[in-house]
Amino acid sequence: MGAKDTPDFDKRGGLITAIAQDHETREILMVAYMNAESFQKTLELGEVVYWSTSRNELWHKGESSGNTQVLKELRVDCDGDAVLLIVEQKGRAACHTGQRSCFFRVRDGEGWREDGEQVFDPAEVYGK
Amino acid sequence: MGAKDTPDFDKRGGLITAIAQDHETREILMVAYMNAESFQKTLELGEVVYWSTSRNELWHKGESSGNTQVLKELRVDCDGDAVLLIVEQKGRAACHTGQRSCFFRVRDGEGWREDGEQVFDPAEVYGK
Repeated sequence: MGAKDTPDFDKRGGLITAIAQDHETREILMVAYMNAESFQKTLELGEVVYWSTSRNELWHKGESSGNTQVLKELRVDCDGDAVLLIVEQKGRAACHTGQRSCFFRVRDGEGWREDGEQVFDPAEVYGK
Repeated sequence: MGAKDTPDFDKRGGLITAIAQDHETREILMVAYMNAESFQKTLELGEVVYWSTSRNELWHKGESSGNTQVLKELRVDCDGDAVLLIVEQKGRAACHTGQRSCFFRVRDGEGWREDGEQVFDPAEVYGK
């Protein structure tokens, strides 16, 4: 697989999976999607730009909250349909709920319990 | 979001994203998919069972190679369309290429360089 056909955006209809991992704690912060344009923007800016599949638009992470993700390293997987973004998370929180990581619920028996770190109050950051 | 509607398999046509992370090194090993059946099987077995989108069948990771993933912890993200699998990787390698992690290529300028750990020779493990 050469540099030009990586990532392979055609494999899954134009999108690749993008996983954000904290560069220091190695915690997984979130997972979202990128298209070719957002991938290029991310490399140009040095900050993570996803593709929002709900709004169908470029999503420069942290534009609203200030919690941008500064790109430290970018990796691609063996079949080219996913990237791993090693980032510095500004504001210490990636999740729109104010949790540090979007993966703040852990399986416990037949259900889930919360096990995260509430960093900010979303009402204060995003307003009403 | 209650226990019964989590994960939300309906959100993206029956599949959720499943990220495997090593429980000790916190390295991201691979990313794949799960449907409701593979999610249930994973909980029952205590070993990771993905849904193969190329073969359209259950994929008990490590069935061929012996490199199973023993589930240590399972987390779900805020909107329920992704899970994080904290695993013990048997055989020390997750990737079918014999690399420890599928994310063995790192962005370097305009291209990619390999930066991984070759654990096994795929020709020996999978045969011809």
